[in-house]
Amino acid sequence: MLATLIYGERDIRVEEVADPVLSTGADAIVRVVASCVCGSDLWPYRGVTPTEEPHRIGHEFVGIVEEVGPDVARIKAGDFVIAPFYVCDGTCVNCLNGVSTSCLQGGWWGGDDKVGGFADGGQGERVRVPLADGTLFALEEQPDDALIPSLLTLSDVFGTGHHAAVSAGVGPGSVVAVVGDGAVGLCAILAAKRLGATTIIAMSRHADRQAIAREFGATHIVEERGSDGVKAVKALTGGIGADQVLECVGTKESMDQALRSTRPGGMVGYVGVPNGGPELPVRSMFSRNVGVNGGVAPVRGYIAELLPDVLSGKVDPGLVFDLTLPLTDAAEAYAAMDERRATKVLLRP
Amino acid sequence: MLATLIYGERDIRVEEVADPVLSTGADAIVRVVASCVCGSDLWPYRGVTPTEEPHRIGHEFVGIVEEVGPDVARIKAGDFVIAPFYVCDGTCVNCLNGVSTSCLQGGWWGGDDKVGGFADGGQGERVRVPLADGTLFALEEQPDDALIPSLLTLSDVFGTGHHAAVSAGVGPGSVVAVVGDGAVGLCAILAAKRLGATTIIAMSRHADRQAIAREFGATHIVEERGSDGVKAVKALTGGIGADQVLECVGTKESMDQALRSTRPGGMVGYVGVPNGGPELPVRSMFSRNVGVNGGVAPVRGYIAELLPDVLSGKVDPGLVFDLTLPLTDAAEAYAAMDERRATKVLLRP
Repeated sequence: MLATLIYGERDIRVEEVADPVLSTGADAIVRVVASCVCGSDLWPYRGVTPTEEPHRIGHEFVGIVEEVGPDVARIKAGDFVIAPFYVCDGTCVNCLNGVSTSCLQGGWWGGDDKVGGFADGGQGERVRVPLADGTLFALEEQPDDALIPSLLTLSDVFGTGHHAAVSAGVGPGSVVAVVGDGAVGLCAILAAKRLGATTIIAMSRHADRQAIAREFGATHIVEERGSDGVKAVKALTGGIGADQVLECVGTKESMDQALRSTRPGGMVGYVGVPNGGPELPVRSMFSRNVGVNGGVAPVRGYIAELLPDVLSGKVDPGLVFDLTLPLTDAAEAYAAMDERRATKVLLRP
Repeated sequence: MLATLIYGERDIRVEEVADPVLSTGADAIVRVVASCVCGSDLWPYRGVTPTEEPHRIGHEFVGIVEEVGPDVARIKAGDFVIAPFYVCDGTCVNCLNGVSTSCLQGGWWGGDDKVGGFADGGQGERVRVPLADGTLFALEEQPDDALIPSLLTLSDVFGTGHHAAVSAGVGPGSVVAVVGDGAVGLCAILAAKRLGATTIIAMSRHADRQAIAREFGATHIVEERGSDGVKAVKALTGGIGADQVLECVGTKESMDQALRSTRPGGMVGYVGVPNGGPELPVRSMFSRNVGVNGGVAPVRGYIAELLPDVLSGKVDPGLVFDLTLPLTDAAEAYAAMDERRATKVLLRP
């Protein structure tokens, strides 16, 4: 089959690799219907994270189950499934606590899983899925093809944006600001709107992303950054800042922006993978009672809640995909996102 | 009147000072019935915070209103009042948001207040109370003298322990660990119990404090610290850590203890004034979805909720006072706490 590998900085290749096989009784083999490139894939692509040797890449996909092992009870061949960006059993104490990203048996795509060895990355034609009953979410019926992009966001970005909003405590009447206008930031706007926020301030400088932000429910756009950005948010929030700020970038600057844009007693919900730090300034958080909550989003647990609104068309998170390419053009997909010609690229095998 | 001043490291004196007078129409003059020494008062006492010049000290007191200004509507002469450890108007947006410690007009005892100039410190015979209607909580009737210690804890430590528990999201069935066995940590145990926690692990090495911890609802005591302490907490919590950990110290070590003792997806509620740091380790928090929430406790807003249980005797937070001295012995009160001969000292003018 074909799969995407990263060889090093700005070196993405689609190559013929061995087909995956069932390696434990709890595995499934899934034929990928759609996958995509994540903002976090750009780290090794840009060389921020060094690539020691060529390896498979990708961690978001939806597909059709082709085969299951003898211990798989819930998932069956023919199911249309959504895979979260990680593997989880759904039964351990952390999964039951809603933190399936900390699954005691869990693991990550594209590397050696804890159970059964290598698991494929998703940016390919097929994937061995460990702990299939826990990892995969099966739809009751085959979805309309037009829904594929939105279903694919449940694999990561929509669930991750939702996690930012839930972690920050967004609810009816909330005054929210969102730092970051990538796919996750945009989905955080959609999630905040869905949860009842009535003021949603999108911090964005790009006209195309501002348009999606408005479509998703942003009531205001702030283009300024740093102290000017904080000032602009305060001007829109009675001088005090937002109840909840959703941090969807992961840099020192973005976290600083988020903390300073939050009102006293408010909360930052953060899902931007912290890029080598930053450490959080506890004294200013303490004096203003600004909390920080979030982390690597346990999206598997959110699919059941978010799916009905996707299926009904009430929300359309798939709008974050502004480019669709065949799998064989994966290198161009990375380049387009790296050069900001695309917000998020969908790959079709 | 008599009042307590700090002159420098380990130099506390009780001196004759001018009686306070009404300086704005919103002021009240309160005759102090009881005050006390706070753990945070030990910082200047120990020289950790330098004392540039002699000044008044103290910030927790209860008393009887002697006189009110013409703009005071709610508080009246003769009222028995509880003062929080800060001044607040009760009407600004931050007060209405439940964060009266960030009151737009508010201030602190023992220094120049934003309204009306100098406000006394509480460790004295009388206090000028700015913004009396917002700051003071008046009881409906004069309390029994035996209740004075518990009522005094509503000025700071019981409300602060409660804030740690509320900020961390403690509720029915919670599995809680408490870092710190000072008056605030002990009150955090009581607050967690009151909010329905069913497992409460007190981290304490002192037999006398362990006894109060048990009395307040601790179900387990952990004497170990550092990695051994984390291991002990995990051994009591199915291997994963506590749902909520209440950090009631404020050092780098105590926050580290708290973060590492929290289960994935859990929350640290912190009220220990951060002692010159520490910055929070965002990457480990992110990977485990451990949040941090809390800060300088808005205790004024908690009095109405906590008072009924104090008046009924359902809770007895006044047990944290293990020494009562006349105001004239304030220097000995500080020494006793500094040398850990007392957990918390009550002063009677």
